[in-house]
Parts: sequence; structure tokens; C-alpha cells
Amino acid sequence: MTGFEESVSPPARVAGPGEGISLDELRLAARNHAMPLEALRYEITPIGLHYLLTHYDIPFVDPFEWRLTIDGDVQRALSLGLAELRARAQVSRVVTLECAGNGRALLQPRPVSQPWLTEAVGTAEWTGTPLAPLLREAGIGSAAVDVAFTGADHGVERGVEQDYRRGLSLDDALREDVLLVHTMNGQPLPPQHGAPLRLLVPGWYGMTQVKWLTRISVLDVPFDGYQNATAYRIAKEAGDAGEPVTRIRPRALLQPPGHPDFQTRARVLDRGVHELTGRAWSGWAPVARVEVSVDGGRNWNDAEIGPQPDAYAWRPWRLPWAATAPGHYELAVRATDAAGNVQPSDPDWNRQGMANNQVQRVPVTVR
Amino acid sequence: MTGFEESVSPPARVAGPGEGISLDELRLAARNHAMPLEALRYEITPIGLHYLLTHYDIPFVDPFEWRLTIDGDVQRALSLGLAELRARAQVSRVVTLECAGNGRALLQPRPVSQPWLTEAVGTAEWTGTPLAPLLREAGIGSAAVDVAFTGADHGVERGVEQDYRRGLSLDDALREDVLLVHTMNGQPLPPQHGAPLRLLVPGWYGMTQVKWLTRISVLDVPFDGYQNATAYRIAKEAGDAGEPVTRIRPRALLQPPGHPDFQTRARVLDRGVHELTGRAWSGWAPVARVEVSVDGGRNWNDAEIGPQPDAYAWRPWRLPWAATAPGHYELAVRATDAAGNVQPSDPDWNRQGMANNQVQRVPVTVR
Repeated sequence: MTGFEESVSPPARVAGPGEGISLDELRLAARNHAMPLEALRYEITPIGLHYLLTHYDIPFVDPFEWRLTIDGDVQRALSLGLAELRARAQVSRVVTLECAGNGRALLQPRPVSQPWLTEAVGTAEWTGTPLAPLLREAGIGSAAVDVAFTGADHGVERGVEQDYRRGLSLDDALREDVLLVHTMNGQPLPPQHGAPLRLLVPGWYGMTQVKWLTRISVLDVPFDGYQNATAYRIAKEAGDAGEPVTRIRPRALLQPPGHPDFQTRARVLDRGVHELTGRAWSGWAPVARVEVSVDGGRNWNDAEIGPQPDAYAWRPWRLPWAATAPGHYELAVRATDAAGNVQPSDPDWNRQGMANNQVQRVPVTVR
Repeated sequence: MTGFEESVSPPARVAGPGEGISLDELRLAARNHAMPLEALRYEITPIGLHYLLTHYDIPFVDPFEWRLTIDGDVQRALSLGLAELRARAQVSRVVTLECAGNGRALLQPRPVSQPWLTEAVGTAEWTGTPLAPLLREAGIGSAAVDVAFTGADHGVERGVEQDYRRGLSLDDALREDVLLVHTMNGQPLPPQHGAPLRLLVPGWYGMTQVKWLTRISVLDVPFDGYQNATAYRIAKEAGDAGEPVTRIRPRALLQPPGHPDFQTRARVLDRGVHELTGRAWSGWAPVARVEVSVDGGRNWNDAEIGPQPDAYAWRPWRLPWAATAPGHYELAVRATDAAGNVQPSDPDWNRQGMANNQVQRVPVTVR
């Protein structure tokens, strides 16, 4: 063992003033991908357009050999194959997922990690079996407090070698809408989305939706693993534990109108009336309001909001825009949810670059 | 019309010394994505892991309204719907596609465009109908020299507004293995791969494989559109027309062994014998040799090469490595094809960053 020198697994850092995206960040950006904004036209994001974030490597899991273990503080440990999980009650839900790091690369200074801009999101129809009846069948111990979910993906982060593992409180794990899903958009889960089985906790950021699930352990002590205690924290200072990342903050996105330049992605559109459209979501409460600005946020107009296909799915919105005068415009859109959470114009900077739901801005040229 | 100012569609440029990846390049990297190298384990790349490069936006094409026009220097123009194309002879081929810009971000100085590293590749089973019988049915004019293929994607590049359009010589278009494909890996083409129909020219780089195909025009003059005459050229100087990018240069890729660090993607593996594996391809001739180095290219050993599933599909290779001593190693792999083309250790720098098939290098730590 030569040790995890800093060259292999360095500590977290924040980019220096004016520092461009590093080779490390570019490697991550080449692997992981966001949802191209024109895919906002789909209520259900086609496979391959849904955002994707893989901590380590996508593991190969043989679905015929694979079994899920449910153990820990339970009366009887369970071992279940895919056929047994498919033979149980099946539920389909349309759920919007978003990476907790979405918006990170817009922060100044920029936390060095996966450099998301604004589009690390997607919505799928997920099918699987509810978790709570399985936990009850195993017999939850009277001292149980948390549940840990372990994936088959293995790697090292900040010097800590680990299988990817996240904890949830027992109460959250017993929510009736928490599922173990094997199907995405009517097809078997693709390898990159967690085949053969992943966890689905509607309303929470993506780190919760453990892929390549192999083990569910009921714990009689609070879970203190890396992905809860160290990663996915909102803190200003390096030594501060901060607050955990949990539910998805509200966000609206605009499908950029007109056509783009290849290189700059700057948009050009013809003079006339354009229907601005997009989608909006929040993990805290239904989206209650979507506002659109065509002057960089000085004035806002309410958009019409369409129906929500499921409790934690995005809602469509639209607003006609009479773009009668040629010139440059900055379009912006912001969502407010029924709990009163509203997207900020300026980011809530934090050291890991988590949950930056600042308002999207789309410069366009009307000709 | 306010004009395509440089802020919308700037001229091509090369990054300055030490210039990090720009916001423009990051936007492209977030939209377009490479194939994570662990997906080298699949002979057929699962949908969503195949590389993807979109010049403008992914257009929405209604498959029920859509028709393909074949016109130009023909005796009778044709208009064909999807059902008519599916009713013709159907052929399936396993074909490896690679972006012509693969390897661009490794160049020094770096041409500013989509910043690919080494993995903008993928292999699919494509199904469709041969093009040549359709052209013959239309009646090719006696003066025909080129064929132009137009997609439904629209945008601007370097100040030139355009539908994406590429030309092929009539001889190349009449190759018996050129297909119009509607199916990828047994499923209808996903939106991002050109639904409902794309061109498939086995052996050529990705720019040739026109997506969202709407029109095929037989020309009695050489095609001089932007994507052939300006883009996809190999030239050293800004004013030099250079040579066109055509067939895929040989490349071998290694599936990195061991497990990665999240941030750096640096690899750690346990001491012991590891089977190094990967795939290799060339658009010029079958891959004849794959060599592996574990000392950064000083010494090379021949790998065993597996069968080629189709004429223009990648071949698997493998070589056991006795990694008995802990330490740092640089793995490298290079392919040679039957036409004698071999991957260079150092890149063949050119101004657009095209076809850089320099040898892949994978640093690993054995513990």
C-alpha cells in the first residue's frame, strides 16, 4: 500500500480567482452529463437525456446473480432476487431528480468538483415496489433510528475508500412513496441509472437515490457515513459541519427559444411573438408561481402553470412574449413553491457548491 | 436584424498558454457527453452511454408528419415516410462511431470547441435500409458528382446560419454498406441520435452520420457547404484549407482497472494479476495489432485481439498484467490497422483539433 497520496485523492478546494475549469473538472464533465435544455419539451425525459452523475465507475451487476440484502436491526434478515421484488406490489411514479451540485460552476469562487451549470435534472417514470412493507416484513427493531443504503459502486473520495452508502432517517425510509425501482420509462433500468435496482426518494436531491443497490441496513445508531457526514453539506467554512442537503430547492428552467450558435450557445430569434415555455419543480411543496423576466430581472410577469403529473414531478409553464423590437435581451425565470420558497437572484454560496438554485439567465438576440 | 456580432458567433480561436477551459467549452461539455471508459465492457454500448455531439439543438421531429425528400439531379424526386422506408429491405450493422474532435482538449495549444478528452466513441447496432437502391430508384443524373444530406437541426457557426448539411461523393454515397437508419440497439432512434432517421456511413467520423435527416440531394457540382469546406478540416494555419476529415483513424482504449477517486479519476488497484482489457477500431482497415505498455510507453507487449463483430465495429483485446510491485504506473495502449496506420505517441496538432488519436495514458497506483 503506497497510501492515498494527495495526487490520487486530494482534499476539497475552491478555485482561485480567474482559475479556469481544471483537467479534473473536465474529466468529470466528459463523463457526467446534464439534460440539454431543449429536452424540457418532454414531460418524461428520454433515456440518455436525463442528467447523470456517477461518483466512481458504473459497476457491472449481473442481474441473475444479484440479490438485495435487508439486515441490521431487524428480526429476520431478508435476501431478495429481482423476480421476488417484481412479484410484490408494483407502483409507478413520475419523479423529477436533480443533482445536489447543480449550479456549482456558476459560483464565485467555484468549488472544484463536478462543474454543473443549471441543467443537471431530468424526469422519469420509475416503477418498483414500496420499501416500507419490506422493512416491516423484516421486523424493524425497537431501537432503530436510521436506514443505510449501500450501492455496488466503489471508490475513494477525499482519502476515504468506500462503497457508495447513504443514510435516511427511519421515518423518511418508511414514507409510503419511497420505492425500490427496477424500471425507468417502461424499460429495465439502464446500467448508468443503477441496474438492476435503485432507491427512489421523491423530492430529495440525487445523492439520496442510491444506484446499484445491494444492501439496506436498519441501524440502531445514527448513520455517520461519508456521504452524509462529510459530503452533501451546506457550510461556508472548511471546518464547519453545516447542514445536510435534503430536499430539492425550487427551480424553473426555460427552454431557450430561437436557434443557437454552436460555440457560445448564444441564441438568435426572429422578431415576433414567441411562446416561452419550460418546467418548474420543488421538493418542498408544489410549485405555486412561475415568473418570467425579459429584462434581466428588473420586471417580472406571471407565467401560466400547467398540471403537475405527480406529487414530485415538474410542472410545465408558458408565457407568450411579444419580441417586437430587435436587440439583446436577458430572459430569466424563477419559481416559488407553496411553502414560500423562492429562487434567489444571487446564489447562496457554500463551500461544496450544493443546491445553488439561483435564477437561470438566457441571453438572446432578437433580429 | 442586429447582425451576428462576435458575441453571438465568434471566429475560431486557439486557447492561450495556460488558459483553462472556458465557460463556452464547459457549456458544450455539459450538453455533449463521452462514453465513460468502463462502458468499454459492452460490445454494444447501451443507449445513454454512447457518445453524443449535437451541433445546435436537438430538434423535435414529428415522426408521423416527417418525410424524407430525395431530389436534385435525379430523374424523379422521391418523398418517403417512415413506414415506406421500413417496408424496404432492412439491414442491421454493428458500427463504431467516433467524434472527429475526440482528443481535442489534449492538444497544446488547445483549439477552443467541444473539449473532448479520449472517449467520444460508442458502438451500436443500427438498423435501416440501404441508400444506394433509393438513389438508383430516383434515377441518378449523368452529371452527378456529390450527394448532400440535410438535417432538421438549425443554428449558426462562425457567423454562418445553416441547417446542418454534409456532402459525400457519389461513389461514397453508393457504397453498399451506407444505410438510412431508424433503429438503434433494437429500439426506435432516440431523439438525441437523430430520430426518426439518420445517415450511417460505416468507418467515417461522426460528422458524416447526419441526424434528423430531411433531405438527400444529388448534386451535379461539388458540395461546398460549411460542414465540408470550412469545418472538419485538418490544417495547421488559419488561412489554410487543409485536408478534409474522412475516415476514423485507429485507436485503442483501455478500460481503466481498479477503482477511481471521485475527483481526480486517478486509479488504485490491489497488487496481483489483472487482466487489462479494452477495444480497438479503425475506419481504414481492420485492427491488426494492439500493444500495451505499463511503463508509459518505453516497452510494449502485444495483446490478444478478439473477433470483430462487423467490418467497422471495434474489436476486444486483452493482456494479463502481473502487477506484483506496489508503486505508480502509467498504462498505455496503441492500435495498428491492417493498412499500417498506427496511433502516434504525440498528437498530430491541427487548428481545429481534429482526429487526434494519440495514445491513451492511464496512471494507476498499485498498492
